[in-house]
Amino acid sequence: MSVTLSATLAANEDIERRRRAGERVLHLAFGEAGLPVHPALRDKLVAASDRNGYGPVAGAAELREAAAGYWTRRGLATDPELVVCGPGSKSLLYGLLLAIGGDIVLPMPSWVSYAAQADLVGSRPILVPAPSGEGGAPDPDRVVSAVLHARSQGRVVRSLLVTLPDNPTGRLASPQTIRRLVEVARELDLVIISDEIYRDLLHDPAPPYVSPADLAPERTVVTTGLSKSLALGGWRIGVARLPDGAHDLRRSLLAVASEIWSAPAAPVQDAAAYAFTEPVELVERITQSRRLHSTVSRAVYDRFVEAGASVPMPQGGFYLYPDLGYLGIADITRVLLEEHGIGVLPGHAFGDDPSCSRVRVATSLLYGETTEERLAALTSTDPLLLPWIAESLDHLTMGLKELSVARREPVRRRRKALVPTPCHG
Amino acid sequence: MSVTLSATLAANEDIERRRRAGERVLHLAFGEAGLPVHPALRDKLVAASDRNGYGPVAGAAELREAAAGYWTRRGLATDPELVVCGPGSKSLLYGLLLAIGGDIVLPMPSWVSYAAQADLVGSRPILVPAPSGEGGAPDPDRVVSAVLHARSQGRVVRSLLVTLPDNPTGRLASPQTIRRLVEVARELDLVIISDEIYRDLLHDPAPPYVSPADLAPERTVVTTGLSKSLALGGWRIGVARLPDGAHDLRRSLLAVASEIWSAPAAPVQDAAAYAFTEPVELVERITQSRRLHSTVSRAVYDRFVEAGASVPMPQGGFYLYPDLGYLGIADITRVLLEEHGIGVLPGHAFGDDPSCSRVRVATSLLYGETTEERLAALTSTDPLLLPWIAESLDHLTMGLKELSVARREPVRRRRKALVPTPCHG
Repeated sequence: MSVTLSATLAANEDIERRRRAGERVLHLAFGEAGLPVHPALRDKLVAASDRNGYGPVAGAAELREAAAGYWTRRGLATDPELVVCGPGSKSLLYGLLLAIGGDIVLPMPSWVSYAAQADLVGSRPILVPAPSGEGGAPDPDRVVSAVLHARSQGRVVRSLLVTLPDNPTGRLASPQTIRRLVEVARELDLVIISDEIYRDLLHDPAPPYVSPADLAPERTVVTTGLSKSLALGGWRIGVARLPDGAHDLRRSLLAVASEIWSAPAAPVQDAAAYAFTEPVELVERITQSRRLHSTVSRAVYDRFVEAGASVPMPQGGFYLYPDLGYLGIADITRVLLEEHGIGVLPGHAFGDDPSCSRVRVATSLLYGETTEERLAALTSTDPLLLPWIAESLDHLTMGLKELSVARREPVRRRRKALVPTPCHG
Repeated sequence: MSVTLSATLAANEDIERRRRAGERVLHLAFGEAGLPVHPALRDKLVAASDRNGYGPVAGAAELREAAAGYWTRRGLATDPELVVCGPGSKSLLYGLLLAIGGDIVLPMPSWVSYAAQADLVGSRPILVPAPSGEGGAPDPDRVVSAVLHARSQGRVVRSLLVTLPDNPTGRLASPQTIRRLVEVARELDLVIISDEIYRDLLHDPAPPYVSPADLAPERTVVTTGLSKSLALGGWRIGVARLPDGAHDLRRSLLAVASEIWSAPAAPVQDAAAYAFTEPVELVERITQSRRLHSTVSRAVYDRFVEAGASVPMPQGGFYLYPDLGYLGIADITRVLLEEHGIGVLPGHAFGDDPSCSRVRVATSLLYGETTEERLAALTSTDPLLLPWIAESLDHLTMGLKELSVARREPVRRRRKALVPTPCHG
């Protein structure tokens, strides 16, 4: 086990420090939803402010029932007894890694914390790239060979993880990939962990959403939370739906939970119970959020495409994952930050090939600095015309243009080494 | 690593089930403070209900500064940069075990979660009894021999833990024991973790309180929280004061925190920041709580003494640790629950010798079932006369009397095996 500060945290601290020092830095490095709390949720928190008991480790019955209803309305009949709540789906994912044990197959790239958590529990992640053009799910055929190879070396591989839709790529794995992954998980006897925290932020909610839990409810854990859809990151609330009949896994997870975090904050549980019943005003809030995330992330997508980058079109959440290899600049993340005031995260923080120049761009901190600006962005029919958003987009356009110009200058005039071949994969 | 539901959790579930089924069970098995939230803290939570950002992993600056002030007022000058907040001091203790690494010396008996957490992180606890008549600190001389022995076997021992005052014994280790432990920790190069969550609930706050951090601030981590003194268990908030200059440990702890829990709930952090400034109304609330805990735990102490048990006089918190070995009944915890409706925890859940008949008795759930009853207990000049408390004490007196009578009956009339020799230690 190694314990080091994550690249994300370090990068964010660097950006914050520069901004405090008065530098103009576009903060595209942090996956916070960037929107205010809905007043109905504040009211529920206020009403529950007298709740100070520890309560059950699995979470309050009302919250577990509401979460079960949430999944049942999505076609996945859920027993509240198999719902476990935690202070964020991150905590639950950590607890699941400990409770399931063994090594885990992760998509490459994938959210920074999966591999870091595996490292903390002494598990070795097996990184498998997504099928071409997809994100958030390891290529099923490559999973088979990777797991068989690992097992032939004596390793115990027990689980695989998908993120639907994905952070960092913003892509949703195709139904056929999920179907094939489920077959593979059955063949290899793997538990599937499906992180669906961005599910309600799919930009186009119309096409059918296929969760591995729909196909293999007996071996799939689904995790979600309210940090993204309702911007409650700072309230720390997540829920897990355990596989049908997985009472042993439930006991193990509760044993872990009781020794690490006990339960989510009790007043927050009450507000979350309300949220998971999906009352009309919160559904409307999520619809507005989805529209804003979609509009702004596509506008940012357009800027990268115009600049010449190869970028998969984002399908959900507020992320995109451009390949800036065409610029031929090594250490692209540092150059973007130090010379152009654009803060993004390097792909290798997400387990991607360090020789590539892919970066993760989070667009949700563009909505404004104040509650007023953010609410205006949320309700605007054309948020791209709001001055603070337009200005940020101009900053991005200009920065990417300067970067391309700088690239055409003679090598000796630039401090940075050049990497001539763009990276594919 | 083994993952099993703790004995505490199982015992509490059993008691709750019996109560729901209509059995009259005295709940003396759970360490919840049993008191309402102070209205000033509810006001702060309400005022902060718009705070939904993730915020710094170490905790908000206001909270870290307030906690630093709390320790500074107790003679321990504290740099807010070396304060780390978490969703309960339990989470911080877990993070510290991971960040410090190696095996840990624990008092025997000690709080159930220390050994369980060590188990989860793959550390092997070394259990060392407290000096005779004390609790919460391992006997310094026995620490030396135990650590030297473990090291001679190739084990890496990095830390030792004290609980001041203690759960389960309710005792405060003597200043001379703490002084000697600090010397031993220096000789053996051990980090000291001092869990001081019950510090403000010492029944007699007059005598000097010696924290190992007063003597060895360079190697002592102090943890505390608001779950006990202000009954905020369900709000999940704790703080750690890292050793002076321990910036590496801080980085490791933050790396762990960022991958497991991110930060405590943001609105709770605001309320906690207020609490740690120690405003007059909260100091008064803690004074009232301390008086109630002291009065009721001593009344329970008297009942056990009258019944013939050997019990160390409780000095802090709301626990006592009677030795019921005089009864000669094996499986005393089950007999108390099933035959006399008295729910306590067995000493072996706290790492004590399983052949002994010591049990941990928590007295704080006697204050009432409703907020009104609990507030009445808090403000009463003689809480023992309140009907619901008097009735519980009568239940206890009667149960212990029946137990003694049953013991004098012929062996064949009882289902339980007899253990003739009481346990000392």
